[in-house]
Amino acid sequence: MNTFGRIFRISIFGESHGPMIGVTIDGCPHGIPLKVEDFQADLERRRSGTLGTTPRREEDLPEIVSGWFNGFTTGVPLTIIFHNKDIRSADYIDIKDHPRPGHADFVARQKFGGFNDYRGGGHFSGRMTLALVAAGVVAKKIIPSISIFALLIEAGGNSDIIQAVKEAQEQGDSIGGIVECRAGYISVGYGEPFFDSVESVISHLAFSIPAIKGIEFGSGFSSAKMLGSQHNDPIIDESGKTSSYNAGGVSGGLTNGNELIFRVAVKPTSSISKPQQTYNFTSEKVDELNVEGRHDTCIALRVPVVLEAITAIALADFTLMTRKK
Amino acid sequence: MNTFGRIFRISIFGESHGPMIGVTIDGCPHGIPLKVEDFQADLERRRSGTLGTTPRREEDLPEIVSGWFNGFTTGVPLTIIFHNKDIRSADYIDIKDHPRPGHADFVARQKFGGFNDYRGGGHFSGRMTLALVAAGVVAKKIIPSISIFALLIEAGGNSDIIQAVKEAQEQGDSIGGIVECRAGYISVGYGEPFFDSVESVISHLAFSIPAIKGIEFGSGFSSAKMLGSQHNDPIIDESGKTSSYNAGGVSGGLTNGNELIFRVAVKPTSSISKPQQTYNFTSEKVDELNVEGRHDTCIALRVPVVLEAITAIALADFTLMTRKK
Amino acid sequence: MNTFGRIFRISIFGESHGPMIGVTIDGCPHGIPLKVEDFQADLERRRSGTLGTTPRREEDLPEIVSGWFNGFTTGVPLTIIFHNKDIRSADYIDIKDHPRPGHADFVARQKFGGFNDYRGGGHFSGRMTLALVAAGVVAKKIIPSISIFALLIEAGGNSDIIQAVKEAQEQGDSIGGIVECRAGYISVGYGEPFFDSVESVISHLAFSIPAIKGIEFGSGFSSAKMLGSQHNDPIIDESGKTSSYNAGGVSGGLTNGNELIFRVAVKPTSSISKPQQTYNFTSEKVDELNVEGRHDTCIALRVPVVLEAITAIALADFTLMTRKK
Amino acid sequence: MNTFGRIFRISIFGESHGPMIGVTIDGCPHGIPLKVEDFQADLERRRSGTLGTTPRREEDLPEIVSGWFNGFTTGVPLTIIFHNKDIRSADYIDIKDHPRPGHADFVARQKFGGFNDYRGGGHFSGRMTLALVAAGVVAKKIIPSISIFALLIEAGGNSDIIQAVKEAQEQGDSIGGIVECRAGYISVGYGEPFFDSVESVISHLAFSIPAIKGIEFGSGFSSAKMLGSQHNDPIIDESGKTSSYNAGGVSGGLTNGNELIFRVAVKPTSSISKPQQTYNFTSEKVDELNVEGRHDTCIALRVPVVLEAITAIALADFTLMTRKK
Repeated sequence: MNTFGRIFRISIFGESHGPMIGVTIDGCPHGIPLKVEDFQADLERRRSGTLGTTPRREEDLPEIVSGWFNGFTTGVPLTIIFHNKDIRSADYIDIKDHPRPGHADFVARQKFGGFNDYRGGGHFSGRMTLALVAAGVVAKKIIPSISIFALLIEAGGNSDIIQAVKEAQEQGDSIGGIVECRAGYISVGYGEPFFDSVESVISHLAFSIPAIKGIEFGSGFSSAKMLGSQHNDPIIDESGKTSSYNAGGVSGGLTNGNELIFRVAVKPTSSISKPQQTYNFTSEKVDELNVEGRHDTCIALRVPVVLEAITAIALADFTLMTRKK
Repeated sequence: MNTFGRIFRISIFGESHGPMIGVTIDGCPHGIPLKVEDFQADLERRRSGTLGTTPRREEDLPEIVSGWFNGFTTGVPLTIIFHNKDIRSADYIDIKDHPRPGHADFVARQKFGGFNDYRGGGHFSGRMTLALVAAGVVAKKIIPSISIFALLIEAGGNSDIIQAVKEAQEQGDSIGGIVECRAGYISVGYGEPFFDSVESVISHLAFSIPAIKGIEFGSGFSSAKMLGSQHNDPIIDESGKTSSYNAGGVSGGLTNGNELIFRVAVKPTSSISKPQQTYNFTSEKVDELNVEGRHDTCIALRVPVVLEAITAIALADFTLMTRKK
Repeated sequence: MNTFGRIFRISIFGESHGPMIGVTIDGCPHGIPLKVEDFQADLERRRSGTLGTTPRREEDLPEIVSGWFNGFTTGVPLTIIFHNKDIRSADYIDIKDHPRPGHADFVARQKFGGFNDYRGGGHFSGRMTLALVAAGVVAKKIIPSISIFALLIEAGGNSDIIQAVKEAQEQGDSIGGIVECRAGYISVGYGEPFFDSVESVISHLAFSIPAIKGIEFGSGFSSAKMLGSQHNDPIIDESGKTSSYNAGGVSGGLTNGNELIFRVAVKPTSSISKPQQTYNFTSEKVDELNVEGRHDTCIALRVPVVLEAITAIALADFTLMTRKK
Repeated sequence: MNTFGRIFRISIFGESHGPMIGVTIDGCPHGIPLKVEDFQADLERRRSGTLGTTPRREEDLPEIVSGWFNGFTTGVPLTIIFHNKDIRSADYIDIKDHPRPGHADFVARQKFGGFNDYRGGGHFSGRMTLALVAAGVVAKKIIPSISIFALLIEAGGNSDIIQAVKEAQEQGDSIGGIVECRAGYISVGYGEPFFDSVESVISHLAFSIPAIKGIEFGSGFSSAKMLGSQHNDPIIDESGKTSSYNAGGVSGGLTNGNELIFRVAVKPTSSISKPQQTYNFTSEKVDELNVEGRHDTCIALRVPVVLEAITAIALADFTLMTRKK
């Protein structure tokens, strides 16, 4: 199921080492000004090449191939593609029968009967987040008055993130982190009771980002230790403003007029330079694997822009859903 | 959006103080033996009446009104209803213009232009989980070989849960808790890459349960502090068995053949006996509210069976999706 | 799949001889005034009891059990139920193993492994259209400025419909008919290119009405015999008004500002008083069946109000969809 | 809404004069052998260049850019693209403000606020059926034991189709036609009661093909003139075989084990060489339009392969749905 959304519906396609990666946005309103340059800033934030990220460098130039005319969206499916170029598939031949721990290699092999494109993780690759970021750029244009900002607030349990990355790198190991996202100036009443609560939709999208293993809204897991009298946010005016923010801006599954705040837990990058033990389908026993390929030491460094993107996608869809009902 | 699922699709309806609450399951296979008594155990676990739960007592007798014939499901929509009986709506007149902190009163009023049924929280009531539990009973019958078990492992930050509840009760306050759910004997490869990852679907459903504010799979938030060499679960046989369980049984969004493990954070019950400050639309200022009605001291006590239900619903749908593709 | 719609989503449940038939409308806007009496006129038009219709008489009193408060819709799922009362199930014992020609008895038996509720056709019964008519009443309230009117224009190939019905009745036989539906004052641009064209959505719903075997828009099948110069409707003003109506009000799958016109073909009622040959699973050979139960001579007499209902449902959904972009 | 299907879901994108046209199939099973040559026969049947079709000639070489590895489908989204090459956009400058009768020019302009790509009809172009045919080729591979065959049985009211086309061509006019589709060897019980009846799903897809204005199953519109005793198909064996085929192979919305038979009415090609009257937004009055561009005299000639494609798409989805219960 590679489609998500009610009105603003995104579908992604492609594989890490296939010819291209793409996203189609169906239900995108017409008349939105859009140019290739608009993608640059967010794509650059997602790109690798800096401390702690993989040396694989793709130019990642978006091509808009449908739903775009004379600089504006036309209202029909908007499709954006990225050609894959810097591919070193030879690095991945081994993983077919010697699945990397922490990766999807084993489950993909089983689910797809061995027909999966295993090179670079295939469709399970973090490279697919390129499509999410591109869709996020469009989504942000639909909700220009909402501010969205995500930040890596901790890596490897350390708030000095640069230091944490360097240490892990020296050890040939990897680390995870916590990314916090805040979105402000959202109207009251986004979301639907029960199955389309704001928390449901955002968590659904957030867990589509590889490496995310937890999400919490407002006080989140800390709430479980609080008293009701501490946790309840007193409402202090007719706009719904509260004097504390334990709910993270969501009450009864709906936005309550305060800042939306949530955090995700990003696990350490699965690929590490250290040798690891894993089952080998060829030798039919557990043996040592050295993961080839180029890896991020801390994939969490690249998550903030993706988290912003999925937040924008969710909020754009809620905005379109909520209009004039 | 009160419908969820791909093949096994559930829709819920009703309000806390309306005539009934119900669930329709579309896509339920035919030929499943089902009787009213089958619902009893799980409904009883969800019911109140014991320490820390509300004194509102409903008989909660399910009536199967569609899709059922001669003791078996027929394959057409299966509808189960529960009549509401023990209603004391007079307790709720105030909340229309004096929204309770922590509840959906304010957001529901704004979203639905004041037309919402505010009595007992209306459609936002925790009473709606009755419909989820009923659907869960049916779902469990579709996946008889999968074991699902959820447990409240901590309340108010305390592992002595009875003690924690008593203390909160004495103070007229409320507490939250952590519920852990484990599901065993699941085939490899449930879930779809990206938008229907197992984590996406389970979290989507989990956040539809009122009071849930966080979810984590496997090591979850702790993963963010680990090294890759610690977090990666070594695969030790051809069935995908791993020697550690940091992934919580999900790799690349798909079940990996190990036990599925996740935890949710439940916030403290919003209704407390202590007076609280909140905006009053009548007086047009913040003033004191005493929440009437009958409440749970620790709603988390009633969450395990609901969490099992949504897990069963998700896994039943994955099972039907995965069959013979 | 008993759910249809994008924003205004209807789900139906129930069986002909079960306890009730119902419809849930998810996505129904809040604040729509609604009372039980509003359903009376359309339900009465659908009811039997007049020339050519079955003597089974149900009171068909709607009960609104969710999504309704103080006389208005609340914005959460709106559920309307009808209790079944005038049931004579004994009439149907034979059909389990001796399927009636023209009915769903055989296919339902095979599809649902014999677990289907065969009494009165079960979920395949024309009685389910009661749920469609109820949803249509609500839909019409969402599009008050659109006029929708359907008429039986021919029965048994005869425009003197009363005469045609009488003749068939005397022979113990049944007849079909043609129903035309017109909807006026629709904005330009309803529908989506390709898969949600107006024709696609209306035909999808129309073929959910039992006994419909064909649909055509505008000149329909006659178009196939026309020249382009005859068929093309010249546009004569800036509102899109055309001087002829061969397109039936739909161009490129979208409403074009002119009256929407379509016709459906209704087959003759499958139940007839004459003996018929059909396979008997008990005797394991073809033998004679006398269809018991009470039948309509011309089910097409009851189709117009159902066709109006599904048209209103489609147009209400398009209206809500269009508002959102 | 450019997505359709439950399990086998197709999404199309592109515009007539944009860089490419494409289709993504989500839910396509893995392990299906597929090569570029497999598309050739059906694409060739759809192509123009013969009597009565447009002189625009595209090579229409499919490129498989996602979900395909080593000659087999991988189980992740399968995307197939076609580059547009033989474009003469200059022919279409006029139509922006001088909409062609019969075409979507006017409605597209209004719906999309003038932002639509009007060149060659943009996304409303019959060229989009290329994507449907490509998806049909894949669908046919999922249902190898089902035969599907569509034929133009009448053009311009004439069964001598070549003669009819020649006459229209001489007059600079266009004609429509009737296409019949038959599918054999389908299991009993495809389809779902009510909203996913076989007739509902096939008609939904059929009306997504530009120029289709009517559809009928089995005896279709003739049924409306028949008696029940004539129309009911007697069941003659335990497999559901009937001795007549008035139902067209569908009872109660489900396949009944007999050949599926339906016919569509194709309107005459909207583009004709004769001058036509239509509203001119520039001159603000009705004036004469000469439609430039290259056109089909009888678009119905190219419909059979598209109708087979949508039938295969529907049946592939039903096949996958049916396996899952």
